[in-house]
This record gives sequence, structure tokens and C-alpha cells, in this order.
Amino acid sequence: MAQNQVKIFDSTLRDGAQGQGISFSLEDKIKIVKVLDEMKVDYIEAGNPGSNPKDMEFFKRLKDVELKNAKVVAFGSTRRPKINVEDDKNLKDLLSSGADTIVVFGKSWDFQVTDIIKTSLSENVNMIKDTIEYLCVKGKEVIFDAEHFYDGYKANKEYAMATLKAAEEAGAKVVVLCDTNGGALPQEIYSITKTIKETVKVELGIHSHDDMGMAVANSIMAVEAGASQIQGTFIGIGERCGNANLSTIIPTLKLKLGYKVLNDNELVNLTKTSRYIAEICNITLSDEDPFVGNSAFAHKGGMHIDAVTKSPKSYEHIEPELVGNKRRFLVSEVSGKSTILQEIQKIFPNISKDDKSVQKITDRLKELEYDGYQFEGAEGTVELVIRKIIGKYKPFFKLNHFKIIGEQPYGSEEFSSTAVINITVDGQNEMTAAEGEGPVNALDKAIRKALEVFYPELKQARLVDYKVRVLDSESATEAKVRVLIESTDGIESWSTVGVSRDVIQASWIALVDSIEYKLIKDIERKVKAYF
Amino acid sequence: MAQNQVKIFDSTLRDGAQGQGISFSLEDKIKIVKVLDEMKVDYIEAGNPGSNPKDMEFFKRLKDVELKNAKVVAFGSTRRPKINVEDDKNLKDLLSSGADTIVVFGKSWDFQVTDIIKTSLSENVNMIKDTIEYLCVKGKEVIFDAEHFYDGYKANKEYAMATLKAAEEAGAKVVVLCDTNGGALPQEIYSITKTIKETVKVELGIHSHDDMGMAVANSIMAVEAGASQIQGTFIGIGERCGNANLSTIIPTLKLKLGYKVLNDNELVNLTKTSRYIAEICNITLSDEDPFVGNSAFAHKGGMHIDAVTKSPKSYEHIEPELVGNKRRFLVSEVSGKSTILQEIQKIFPNISKDDKSVQKITDRLKELEYDGYQFEGAEGTVELVIRKIIGKYKPFFKLNHFKIIGEQPYGSEEFSSTAVINITVDGQNEMTAAEGEGPVNALDKAIRKALEVFYPELKQARLVDYKVRVLDSESATEAKVRVLIESTDGIESWSTVGVSRDVIQASWIALVDSIEYKLIKDIERKVKAYF
Repeated sequence: MAQNQVKIFDSTLRDGAQGQGISFSLEDKIKIVKVLDEMKVDYIEAGNPGSNPKDMEFFKRLKDVELKNAKVVAFGSTRRPKINVEDDKNLKDLLSSGADTIVVFGKSWDFQVTDIIKTSLSENVNMIKDTIEYLCVKGKEVIFDAEHFYDGYKANKEYAMATLKAAEEAGAKVVVLCDTNGGALPQEIYSITKTIKETVKVELGIHSHDDMGMAVANSIMAVEAGASQIQGTFIGIGERCGNANLSTIIPTLKLKLGYKVLNDNELVNLTKTSRYIAEICNITLSDEDPFVGNSAFAHKGGMHIDAVTKSPKSYEHIEPELVGNKRRFLVSEVSGKSTILQEIQKIFPNISKDDKSVQKITDRLKELEYDGYQFEGAEGTVELVIRKIIGKYKPFFKLNHFKIIGEQPYGSEEFSSTAVINITVDGQNEMTAAEGEGPVNALDKAIRKALEVFYPELKQARLVDYKVRVLDSESATEAKVRVLIESTDGIESWSTVGVSRDVIQASWIALVDSIEYKLIKDIERKVKAYF
Repeated sequence: MAQNQVKIFDSTLRDGAQGQGISFSLEDKIKIVKVLDEMKVDYIEAGNPGSNPKDMEFFKRLKDVELKNAKVVAFGSTRRPKINVEDDKNLKDLLSSGADTIVVFGKSWDFQVTDIIKTSLSENVNMIKDTIEYLCVKGKEVIFDAEHFYDGYKANKEYAMATLKAAEEAGAKVVVLCDTNGGALPQEIYSITKTIKETVKVELGIHSHDDMGMAVANSIMAVEAGASQIQGTFIGIGERCGNANLSTIIPTLKLKLGYKVLNDNELVNLTKTSRYIAEICNITLSDEDPFVGNSAFAHKGGMHIDAVTKSPKSYEHIEPELVGNKRRFLVSEVSGKSTILQEIQKIFPNISKDDKSVQKITDRLKELEYDGYQFEGAEGTVELVIRKIIGKYKPFFKLNHFKIIGEQPYGSEEFSSTAVINITVDGQNEMTAAEGEGPVNALDKAIRKALEVFYPELKQARLVDYKVRVLDSESATEAKVRVLIESTDGIESWSTVGVSRDVIQASWIALVDSIEYKLIKDIERKVKAYF
């Protein structure tokens, strides 16, 4: 291995799955494995086949998934006390998982041996040795996770070292020092890891937790002390306060310390990948997340915005583009107009900053934001706001009325709501109805059915994503909701947004924007093709 | 100052207010000042009176607020280039704020002087010197924030040192080294701070940002190198990725390193205070926040739960009670029968682990989780599942049917939906209707109205939180949604959950659980009072 290379070991599917609120379907897991492989992480810990039939099923499915870069890893414990390795069910499951790399975790803290697994200190060392030897004979690459290593080292240095030595002698390729409880300080991590580096010959890894908000710093300190593998989760999810956040560690190692991590071309996909994984985990990435968060390069203070406009490095520690993120000036009393001008000029390049429509659009967007709108990732709605104010917009239909009826019990098993809609296009009236799973689905079907009579091209468009967010959740069912819709027609994707106290109304606003955006793009394409 | 004392400087109202989405009213600010004073922080930075008339107004109001511990601080820049201190409007405002302690920020990075404020390096040093001397003469305690100090030191060591020296000689009581852009590494912070400590005689402070997720570690490293003041924000809010999180730093300094911080009795209020400040900031504290987050001491993995039951220190780096937080065992698919048994025994202490209902309940919860349910933080629904299987449940009403009509246009400005409901209680039929903002709000009102005829105690209960999550968002408006409802009756709070492809149906499931849970608790209280 190159001198300054650091290997990235992702445990989103194992330690990450132990985070509060995380629950993966089989399809979710496949998606995560594929995107981590594309990012060129070195190891993907896919689960604990011995503890969980779902994990075993997943390993079977993984045999059909072709990976270009990453090694799939199965995770499991040392053999149980006082039995032979051949008789240990967990080890059998690890072998039948089909993974070529196995992480074996064992105890390095004497207290854990005597009080938790309740066996003798010498038997625990034997368990580590026997298990690793057995797996090596079976042709596996073995990584030893020395659980609670730092706590163990502080309590009983000799014993902690004995567990490492046993793993090394038994053939482990990497020995990973774990701060399992997240209670170690950066300087402790540094000095202990440095000492270990001087006595252990195999590769060293670090596995840290964020219980003191130091998992990232501790991982970096361990690398500086000689570790060459970092275990973490891509977006930091995990038991309690989470694991070391790889999306923070990777750019820090690469951009600040010059280590070789992943391939050279992957860093620009960091933000996109983190957000995609968050989507699959069904969690919202914190805006404040380093490097990849929505606010990581967002400037709000007037003085900051002014300075960044002169020179970005005045308030940015790296260029956001390096990690695929972007600079944002938050729309507030002091900023905004120049950002909004950029949006306007994308559609109407001839509008200059002194045009009075610029101020009007800025005011209107601010007003909508005040009402709970959020335009980040809702370009479709932004374009429609701009067009409406500039006057380059005319409605494609007029809503006369709609009615939604939700019933329980409902006449059909499949559906639960009916929508009736009445619209006018060019003086011609169209009334129709549709059934759906819930009121929004019924309304979506009904408006499309009515409009397709006039605009058959709408058949190409479909919704691909639908998100509901309760804004002021404390006012409970009266709270405002924001609906974000993503649509595609196979050529382009666009997002639109609606806000209301009524989820149907909010969905309707976003839906109408989505349809009108599609129809405008079709006209533009026709115009372009003709002239 | 005692050798190992570290002073805590909170900037929630100044740097924190620059975080995305943060906007304080005057009353919010007063509340935050009071609670920080109760926590016995040493300094509260209340705003920048020269930049903002709102901040000036707040300083005026603060004159009437009596504080027991903390010093209120006003923040402002050095004088502008090429003018006299007496003529500087910002300095006038700082003085008329009435604050006895003033933070003066000035540039320590040569590039910022030449390229951003566009003056000469020597003039910038004069600006620092003149400003601090002037404020000292006026009797103020002056803290100098050496903005961009670490970047400046790395770029031009001599110049960065010259700015510190100017501040020291002019009478600054504390010189604060700022990692304004959050791009410095723990070891850099340590070694640079240590060097400064050897040459500067006044107190040193550290001000760090979280752009690499290291603000906490960097603050601790600076203290270890000799700094005795930490600037941060109580829950970590601030420009871009936020400031150093004091709610993580305080317990780390106190419990792990033995520094004197705040008073000895305040640590148990840490969790409560953090959550209160988050409420006022109108943000949700991350579950994963170290020490104070909802999941900081939550255990999900079966092996972890088993070990923590034997000895908490096996997977907890401190006792949660020390910081006023608590241990939780999460009910989920990776947690085993033993967690579920604990949930059962909370309600039915006599049920043993061999009772066949334990397996049935485990299976049922897993089945529901597979369907998209999530029971972490939905104890109300868990209790009802347990009761239904054990047979200690009987429905409080029978739904005959409901009908929801959403219309646009609607007859009233205020509402947009009508719900009609028909239920039976003890053979007596009740039919009623209600209007609401959206279908769920209308249904919520209608079912309560119908049930209050039979159960007037329901009037005490109300929803306090309502969350909607789209589960498989790619199937768009046909996607499954999960609704989480939190309710309270003033005595207790409880959460319930429902899943369906129809948002109305999902809300209905959670709503019924919420109501039934309340009615069961009322019966339990009555029984307890009687026997």
C-alpha cells in the first residue's frame, strides 16, 4: 500500500443501521452498495449474517451484484466461549455469507470480558486467536475490530495489547482500534495509536463514535499517528450519536492533509452521494453538515457576503465545487438580488440588474419564503414566479372547481378517495373524475386526465418524487405543510413546491406548477426546433 | 483566575443569529439571556449594536434585566481606516449600548487587510491599537477577537503576531484566536496556540467554526494548549456549519478533563437548557447531538442493550443523569425480544420472558415495521399493540363510516374541507361534522367532537406535533406515508403512529391510537386513585 494511502471502510449498512430511525429494505441496501461502489470506497460492511436472517438474505442477493471497486464485508463476533470454532453457528453464517472479507470483533477491555461476556481473560484471547486462524485457513481476508480498545488500554494496557497480538499472530490483515463508546479525546487517541503503531506490524484502522462530537477529529488524529484504514458511515449515522462521518473525513484527508483517499475523480460527487444516501436512509441531511450540507457554503451576514463577493477564500475554507457543493447567499434583508438576477438571466438573458422587475421578483420570492416556501431545489416554481412577474406567462387552463371525497369504508379495496374536477381550456369545458389512493393521488390523476384532452404531450410527464414536510409542527393538524414534487418527461427533470395549511391545496399548487412548467418547456422546444 | 478554570462565552445571539433559518424576536433574546445566566455562563454576547438598530434596541431593554452571573457583551469592529476613534459611529454605538464588556474584532490575516478591507497592514494594526485603547480609557473590559488568526498565522506569522501584540499593549484583557473559516486541524490549533501562549501574557481564548466537524475538538485542543476562554454557541448554531457547540464542550471539559467550568451544580440542567434554547431558536435539536440529544444514550443493537442492562458503562461513556439526559432502549427490528419484554413489563410486570404473548408481540411489531411503521418514539402505539395481543384492550368506539369532502373553491375563507363522521359507543349512535384546514384537520375535529359526547375528559387532550413522512417517495403521490402524532393532556405526553398509502388513513390510525391511549391512561389513573 502506498505510504500515504488511507482506506475507507463504510459501515452504513451495519453500524449505521443501528442509528435511531434507520430501517433499510433489501432494495435500499442494494442502492447503497451500488453508490458506495461508484464512490470507490474500499470496503462496504454489509451486515451481520449470523444475527439476522434479513442480513443473510441480503448477502445472497449481493452475489448477483457486480461491484467494480469495493469489497463486501461480513461482520460477526469471535466464537462463543468454550466451544470449537467448527461448532459456532455465527462463524458458519459468516462463511456461508460468501463475503471474502470478514470483520471479526472481539473484546479488548478486560471489564467487558469478565462482566459482560463473562468468561476468563485467557479464554477471550483464545477466542480471538481461534476465530481468526479458522477464517484465514478458509481463505478469508480478516479484519479484527478491537472493540473498546481505547477504554481497555486505559484500564489494562497489557491485556489490551495481548488481544491485538493474538489477532496479529492469528493472521489478521488489519487491526482496528475502536473507541466504541465515543469517550476518548483526540490527544489520547493520538498518543495511544502512535504507541500501538510502534509495536504492531499489520495495518492499523480506527473506528470511532461521536459521543463527544469528536469522531471526525479522532479519526484524523489516528491517521496522523499511523492508522491507514478508517471505519465510519458515509453520512455519520450509527448507534447513539453516530459513527465517524466519512463525508467529512474524506475531503479533510484529501484536501487538507494530502492523503490518497478513494480515486482522484470521486470528490466532486461527494455532496450528491451524501444526499442520495440520506434520501435512502429517509433522513434529512443537516443543513450544517460540513462540506455536503445545504448551508456548508451559505453566507448570511452582510459583511461575509460582501467579503465573499470580493474573494471567496475570505469566508470559505475550500472551494465548494471541489466537493460538488455550491455557494449560496441566503435571501435576507441584506442580500439576494444578485443571486436572483442570476436566476432571471438563465431564462431572460437580456434583463439587466437595473430592470425594475428584478426588485419585484426579489420581493415576491422573499414574501413566499416568509410563508414557508423554500426554493432550493424547486427551480420549476422559481421559473414560474419569474415568468408571471415579467409577463411571459399565460395560464394553460382555468380551474372551475374540484371536489375530493375520502371515505371509509370505501367501495373498493384498492382506492380510498375520489376526485371530481371541472376545468376550462380555450372556452371548452371538461369535467372528469378519478379514484386514487388518498386524496392527492386522486386529484393528480383527475387533473391529468382532464388536461390530456387538450395537451396530449402531458402523457410523457410523470411524478417521480413527492415529499411532504410539516412546517410548524406544533400547531399539529392545522400546521402548514410544504409539498415538493419532482417530475420528469424523460428529457428533463424539474421540481416544484407548494405551501398551505391544507395538504391537498399545497399539493395542488405544486402540481399545477409542475404541469405548466412541462407545457412551457414543450413550447420552447418547438420554437427552438422551428427557428 | 484559578489555574484550571475555563470561561464560557456564548454567542448564540450574535454569531448564532447568522445561522440559516435563525431569526430572534426581542422576547426570544430576553429568554435566551435569562436561561444562559441561570446556567452561569461567564459572558453573553448579545449583538452588534453598530450594525443593526434591532440589536441596539435590545441592549436598551437589557438594562432592565437583572443578571446574577453573566456579563453582557457588545460586539463590534475596530474603527474604520483613516478616521479618528471619536468619529467612528460603530464605536459610539458600542459605548452607548451600555455593555461593560466589549468584543472588538480585527483582522489578523494580511490578505483580509489588503484585499477585503483594503487598507495598509500598518493602518490595520493602528486600528486595533486605537480602538482598544479608546475603549479601555472609557472604562470598558475589552476582549479582542483576532479574526482569521490561524489562517493569518499560517500565511504571515509575523503580521498575525503583530496584531495580537497591538491588542495586548493597548489593554485587551483577553485575546481570542479565531478559526473564522473553520479550516484548521486539531494539531495545528494545538501547536499554534501553544506557541502564542508562550509569547502573549494576557488570557487567551478560542473561537472556532465547524466547517470540518472539528469545532469541539479544536476548542478542547486550544484549552489543552493554554486557552482559558471558549467562544461558541450553546447548541452550535452559527454561520455556515455553525460555531463550536458549548453543550458538548462544557461536559467534556468538566467530566473528562477536570476543568472548572460554570458552577458545579449546573451540569444536570444541560439537556433541559439545550432543548429550551432549541425551542426558542425554532429548530429541532438533532437526536444525535452529543450529551443532550434524544439518542445520545439510546441503544438499538440487541447486543448493546443486553450489555447495558448488565452494566451501563459497557456502552455509555458517562452516566446520562450527569447531564440531565436519560437512557433509552429503542424498539426496532434489530433489537431483540429482551427490549420488547421490557416494554411489556412496564405495563404488565408479571409477564415473564417465556410467556407466549412475548413472541406474538415481537412478531406483530416486526410485521408492522416491515409495512413502514417505526416505533422509536411512538410508545403510545407500542402500548396499544401490546394490550391488543395480551387481551387487555377493548375499543372505545366503533367507526361506522366517515366521509371527507375537500373543495376548491370552498364556501369559507378559513377552511377548505369538511368531515362527516358516524360512530357508535355502547349502542348509542353519534353522527357529526366539522370543518377544517385540510382533510386531516377536519377529521381530527369531527372525531373529537363525536367522542366528547361520551368521553368529556378528551377535552383536556390536544395534539402538539404532527409529522408526515413519505416513505417510498419515488412512487410519488401513490407512495406510503407515515404519520407521527404527539399528544398531551398536560400531565403526560404520548406519541402514536400510522402508515398507509392514504395520508388521511395514516392520520386516522395514529389519531385513534392517540385517543384510545388517553382514555386508557384516564382509567388507570382512576383505578390507582381508588385502590
